[in-house]
Amino acid sequence: MSCYPTSIHFKRLLLTGAAGVLGRQLRPRLKAHCCLLRVSDIADLGSAAPGEELHPARLEDADAMSRLLEGVQAVVHLGGVSTEQPWEAILQANIIGAYNLYEAARKQAVPRVVFASSNHVTGFYRRDQVVGLDDPARPDGLYGLSKTFGEDLARLYFDRYGIETVCLRIGSALPEPHDRRTLATWISYDDLERLVVASLTAPMVGHSIIYGVGDNAVGWWDNHLARHIGYQPQDSSERFRSRIESSEPPPDMTDPATIYQGGIFVRSGPLAK
Amino acid sequence: MSCYPTSIHFKRLLLTGAAGVLGRQLRPRLKAHCCLLRVSDIADLGSAAPGEELHPARLEDADAMSRLLEGVQAVVHLGGVSTEQPWEAILQANIIGAYNLYEAARKQAVPRVVFASSNHVTGFYRRDQVVGLDDPARPDGLYGLSKTFGEDLARLYFDRYGIETVCLRIGSALPEPHDRRTLATWISYDDLERLVVASLTAPMVGHSIIYGVGDNAVGWWDNHLARHIGYQPQDSSERFRSRIESSEPPPDMTDPATIYQGGIFVRSGPLAK
Amino acid sequence: MSCYPTSIHFKRLLLTGAAGVLGRQLRPRLKAHCCLLRVSDIADLGSAAPGEELHPARLEDADAMSRLLEGVQAVVHLGGVSTEQPWEAILQANIIGAYNLYEAARKQAVPRVVFASSNHVTGFYRRDQVVGLDDPARPDGLYGLSKTFGEDLARLYFDRYGIETVCLRIGSALPEPHDRRTLATWISYDDLERLVVASLTAPMVGHSIIYGVGDNAVGWWDNHLARHIGYQPQDSSERFRSRIESSEPPPDMTDPATIYQGGIFVRSGPLAK
Amino acid sequence: MSCYPTSIHFKRLLLTGAAGVLGRQLRPRLKAHCCLLRVSDIADLGSAAPGEELHPARLEDADAMSRLLEGVQAVVHLGGVSTEQPWEAILQANIIGAYNLYEAARKQAVPRVVFASSNHVTGFYRRDQVVGLDDPARPDGLYGLSKTFGEDLARLYFDRYGIETVCLRIGSALPEPHDRRTLATWISYDDLERLVVASLTAPMVGHSIIYGVGDNAVGWWDNHLARHIGYQPQDSSERFRSRIESSEPPPDMTDPATIYQGGIFVRSGPLAK
Amino acid sequence: MSCYPTSIHFKRLLLTGAAGVLGRQLRPRLKAHCCLLRVSDIADLGSAAPGEELHPARLEDADAMSRLLEGVQAVVHLGGVSTEQPWEAILQANIIGAYNLYEAARKQAVPRVVFASSNHVTGFYRRDQVVGLDDPARPDGLYGLSKTFGEDLARLYFDRYGIETVCLRIGSALPEPHDRRTLATWISYDDLERLVVASLTAPMVGHSIIYGVGDNAVGWWDNHLARHIGYQPQDSSERFRSRIESSEPPPDMTDPATIYQGGIFVRSGPLAK
Amino acid sequence: MSCYPTSIHFKRLLLTGAAGVLGRQLRPRLKAHCCLLRVSDIADLGSAAPGEELHPARLEDADAMSRLLEGVQAVVHLGGVSTEQPWEAILQANIIGAYNLYEAARKQAVPRVVFASSNHVTGFYRRDQVVGLDDPARPDGLYGLSKTFGEDLARLYFDRYGIETVCLRIGSALPEPHDRRTLATWISYDDLERLVVASLTAPMVGHSIIYGVGDNAVGWWDNHLARHIGYQPQDSSERFRSRIESSEPPPDMTDPATIYQGGIFVRSGPLAK
Repeated sequence: MSCYPTSIHFKRLLLTGAAGVLGRQLRPRLKAHCCLLRVSDIADLGSAAPGEELHPARLEDADAMSRLLEGVQAVVHLGGVSTEQPWEAILQANIIGAYNLYEAARKQAVPRVVFASSNHVTGFYRRDQVVGLDDPARPDGLYGLSKTFGEDLARLYFDRYGIETVCLRIGSALPEPHDRRTLATWISYDDLERLVVASLTAPMVGHSIIYGVGDNAVGWWDNHLARHIGYQPQDSSERFRSRIESSEPPPDMTDPATIYQGGIFVRSGPLAK
Repeated sequence: MSCYPTSIHFKRLLLTGAAGVLGRQLRPRLKAHCCLLRVSDIADLGSAAPGEELHPARLEDADAMSRLLEGVQAVVHLGGVSTEQPWEAILQANIIGAYNLYEAARKQAVPRVVFASSNHVTGFYRRDQVVGLDDPARPDGLYGLSKTFGEDLARLYFDRYGIETVCLRIGSALPEPHDRRTLATWISYDDLERLVVASLTAPMVGHSIIYGVGDNAVGWWDNHLARHIGYQPQDSSERFRSRIESSEPPPDMTDPATIYQGGIFVRSGPLAK
Repeated sequence: MSCYPTSIHFKRLLLTGAAGVLGRQLRPRLKAHCCLLRVSDIADLGSAAPGEELHPARLEDADAMSRLLEGVQAVVHLGGVSTEQPWEAILQANIIGAYNLYEAARKQAVPRVVFASSNHVTGFYRRDQVVGLDDPARPDGLYGLSKTFGEDLARLYFDRYGIETVCLRIGSALPEPHDRRTLATWISYDDLERLVVASLTAPMVGHSIIYGVGDNAVGWWDNHLARHIGYQPQDSSERFRSRIESSEPPPDMTDPATIYQGGIFVRSGPLAK
Repeated sequence: MSCYPTSIHFKRLLLTGAAGVLGRQLRPRLKAHCCLLRVSDIADLGSAAPGEELHPARLEDADAMSRLLEGVQAVVHLGGVSTEQPWEAILQANIIGAYNLYEAARKQAVPRVVFASSNHVTGFYRRDQVVGLDDPARPDGLYGLSKTFGEDLARLYFDRYGIETVCLRIGSALPEPHDRRTLATWISYDDLERLVVASLTAPMVGHSIIYGVGDNAVGWWDNHLARHIGYQPQDSSERFRSRIESSEPPPDMTDPATIYQGGIFVRSGPLAK
Repeated sequence: MSCYPTSIHFKRLLLTGAAGVLGRQLRPRLKAHCCLLRVSDIADLGSAAPGEELHPARLEDADAMSRLLEGVQAVVHLGGVSTEQPWEAILQANIIGAYNLYEAARKQAVPRVVFASSNHVTGFYRRDQVVGLDDPARPDGLYGLSKTFGEDLARLYFDRYGIETVCLRIGSALPEPHDRRTLATWISYDDLERLVVASLTAPMVGHSIIYGVGDNAVGWWDNHLARHIGYQPQDSSERFRSRIESSEPPPDMTDPATIYQGGIFVRSGPLAK
Repeated sequence: MSCYPTSIHFKRLLLTGAAGVLGRQLRPRLKAHCCLLRVSDIADLGSAAPGEELHPARLEDADAMSRLLEGVQAVVHLGGVSTEQPWEAILQANIIGAYNLYEAARKQAVPRVVFASSNHVTGFYRRDQVVGLDDPARPDGLYGLSKTFGEDLARLYFDRYGIETVCLRIGSALPEPHDRRTLATWISYDDLERLVVASLTAPMVGHSIIYGVGDNAVGWWDNHLARHIGYQPQDSSERFRSRIESSEPPPDMTDPATIYQGGIFVRSGPLAK
């Protein structure tokens, strides 16, 4: 085989949630950083590209998760629910699933996880506030709460077992921003790749948190405590600004979805009833 | 009926976990603060004292929890697992159970919860550190992690629904301290009562966190950001100090259970295997 | 004359607002700390007690103020409006009046002022928050705003001219607390005297801020950055608590006057129209 | 009419102080952001350009100010005194005038003000200090004090009435820097325009403070807490540096005007006598 | 022998500087906490009391220091220069001496040092400031500088070798306060004993810093980050206050010795020439 | 002579350690900023270039140091030991030498020193932490400790005598980075020149600390509190990253030299025995 693992080139890398929106973006991009990319999901993964191995697994299945992590050097964990959904779905995929993932990492001695957290961990901060990486969580719904749980779980597994995690509080990973909120929260797919690769290859991350956001002019988050990760965004939402602002109605400042960073998450989902 | 609810005298108060060690202590003490004390547990509750109503309910049963909270003005939630146990037990009682509790509070419009959290939420801080109420959580095991979840859940229900919670990070509620660690973490039953009553009756608590600890000389926690609750401990572990220190072997400074605040929790339980 | 000024016994001390509620309390108490107490007000000051000299002056009259401060070693400035009132009244007494006071202090080389500020400087903080002495001002009305102005004015006169000031953010100076809010904000007249005397006699105060509040159980303010002043309150509102709480209706948590520390100030006065 | 208001294109925008140095710069630039630009001053405003309406008004005249704000969606308030002057002038224009402005905004339901504050709000910090947006004010004279008052007044009107303000602590807005101090404090007219437009159009600003300064190498102010406004300066004083530094005498480190950020303001004006 | 070492009762404890003013106070008091008290100094130590062993040694003599620490479980290091003196004296006793002490502790595997640092480590803070334990050092002379060195040296030996130290920034340990400054800085001999014993017996101290000061009303230092040590002062300077204040001339506010916490240290000593 | 000193062009500038690795780099570069460059070392300095004067001096020789600083306007102090070495060498060159330097500056009235400190002042912070300029020192060896001493010494000489210092905590000044650690710590010689020149010419620096590091992607240090110095790095290690990372073995996360910022300094040198 012509692939040689190095300190930044993994022998086998695992990507969960590979069939999701972001998973499909990262799947080909991550291939360049490993000899073998194991991809997993419960949705259809298509056929394996060269250097890929398909490994479907349910997050709720502890044994399956343990097998899934066997022999991998690092996990990029995008799997699970990524929108506001009923408790049962979030419980299974994001709480039980995250626990199963970390137990599997412990059993299989996987040293590092890149964990897709979310900006909804702090969605109940106001839009006139700049949140730092050590400010308390203020989740805006069950989804955000499950990601808060995941971050704390990762903290525990680092403190007890030395498993390193970078928690990516991803903003809005989209081809381009589409409204006023995403002007502030947007991250391009290229920047997302930069962020994931930096998180995988930074020499030491311990338990780190970082917002996954581009080099936008308007910003709600201060990443300076995560400089050791070495993420440098290149893309800014600024070039989309005038088009979006001129076509959107003025914001309704009495709507919680306008006031708080989490947007409609703060008033939608099963809790809204 | 001769009982008149006032602003500090509840018409009906709910105590969960009433058959547990702390529940049995608080059950008679809380009676003085309400016309009717509803007590709940899955263990035997004995017979109802005057002014009490027994209402067994499983935390995992969402409907039962909703009925349990019907007509109450406040909840003191001691229910659930309070030691390091296998994930499944903690998941059911402390994660699903806490979710059910808050959903019930929302449906039944219960305005305030006093939530028994734990010092194990921050058990991975060292014993030469003083932890403040806004420092990040560092849970020391699955139990501590479940309490971290409960605190964040309470935050969400305050931000979205205005349900107030005081999270009590209880230290070691015991008749008296019994080792070096509990000299720092001890809270007497009388102080625990003071703390719970202050949390129930403080005019406004929003989402507050406070360590449940006495007026001990050695302390690891700084409660000054919770002065609005009005808790003033009266009992100190100091009078037990010389007896304990002279009878205990010198601490083994290489043992994580000695280095970290969480004590043996940091290396015991199902994760220890 | 049998009076000898010392480092803590002033030759001549000025008390403004001496005919007001607090002025009448402090007037006889301050006499013990000076050879001569000059008292001023625009209301009737009665007749001069031994060791007193009456000196009525309008705060709005710059020349009168300059004469008023002639020959005094320190000023306790209670004068001006102390409730929410129309802008014109506050402008004259508290803004122009404060400016005249400090200009007079500069011209007459008076080295220290004890300035009656108010907790309404921070009245728009919530009651589930503990405010520190370096948190930004959030005045709750025109009165609070005028006191914020006074504190900043005092800062300027210290930075430019070295005139020292202790700004007393007085809570509720009353014979006893009379509602839930004053349980948290109460300061007894004895403690107020302790506070004023400590502020007058502390060796060096620069520009200091301190909340004027007793040793109450429930508290919203953290004075630890003012330990150099040496104020130690002795009186607690705790003994009034059960009587007040049992007779008051439950707080209406939708009322800004209940949510914010400033109480009815946050929704009353000329701005309320 | 061919002008359509959008969420960033105001139907009617008010610029006060339009005849002043900065007003004359911003007047043509702001025209691009509104259908109608109402300009006001007490000095001669010249003739109305297309899309402009002239509306002279005295800041001290409450009724005139109320009429001035009728029908506008936002105010850029440059009006008032912008140098150290005698108290009476500052009192009238900057204290009474600011109050009149905000009362007018309240009566006319104007939702946002861009308020020209000043770096002299913090002029008594030293030049070897970097000031953050939450550091306490240290005004360097009556002018700075009046701007501190304006910032606090704006805070009050946001907390009570929801009127949003961005307080611009403008450094030195000049065609180019002309001495060592302005190398650190300089903001180009283009950057000033960027700052004002960002402040007008940011979706939510609450009560925000931001220093109005360019992308200079040497800087005394840290704007990171205002990232939500989205101001990104483009111009740096660096290209003027060598010329200025080589032609200026060495700084006199015993002069307060050299030590403190406020420069000659700290020792000039009516207070200097 | 009837002495049994326990976790708080040392088999052999070393006191350096035992012939100095504070050494003579602590020598008999420390005897109660150990089977054998080794006392050292270069001055005359008198004769050994029961349970004492005399061991003179020069701090500058590395080999002698190594022998001095042989077989001891803990060191209370009062040795060295404790006043402002010429550089050569401070260099030898406090810099080289401190290095020799820690090298000896490393070689002899002594696990804990109680290091007599000094308030002069922060003597250049002003008296209207309250200094916290994590504020940067601002030594007021060569003596304070040498103690700053000692604190950092102790930090190094903890980080590299796990040798624990409590740095006691002793205020003014005197029979009673004798001037305005010592009203703020006084610590009684009884409180000093409490502090040293707490530092010796606290279960875990890592590298800790604490001010050695009594329960005085006026205070410049905030010890709350050292609560894990368990020091609770009992004695206050308050009862000496009126006598001192009434007999002292008013402070000269232009004198650095009055402005800064360090008192005359800030302008005396060999640097004053 | 055609050289005219200006506010940024020194009449006579002193460079110590001119024969060392960094000294040889800075020697020709500094010549552009002064009429006369005095260069000093104990190693061979070669022959004097135009505008240079050679002045060998031993740091341990107080009189020689005093003569060395005679007639200079500023010192760039690179002299002394710059690696981990036995205590005696560090004591002589870096502790006694630094003291002699500052005494000489005081005697010769030299107003500013640019002091080559080191990142080893904070070498015991972990690589997953970002250190700010006001975080406590955590030296990683005797060399780092000596630089901590130098920084505190400089603080003292500023507080007492007004001698300004910029302490440069230099990372790894090299032609290019050569391993994973230097990717984070690298500073190019051009950036080092920018840093030294900014430190020499910034109008006011008081006692400032700044990390000497380039514009690298991965970074462990936050310089934002030193913006008043005006250092703007231009060179990034990023272009060397892939080559280094692909050729280095994976980091050993159990090695303190990998965990801590100081690298091998944390376990090497005389203390390692």
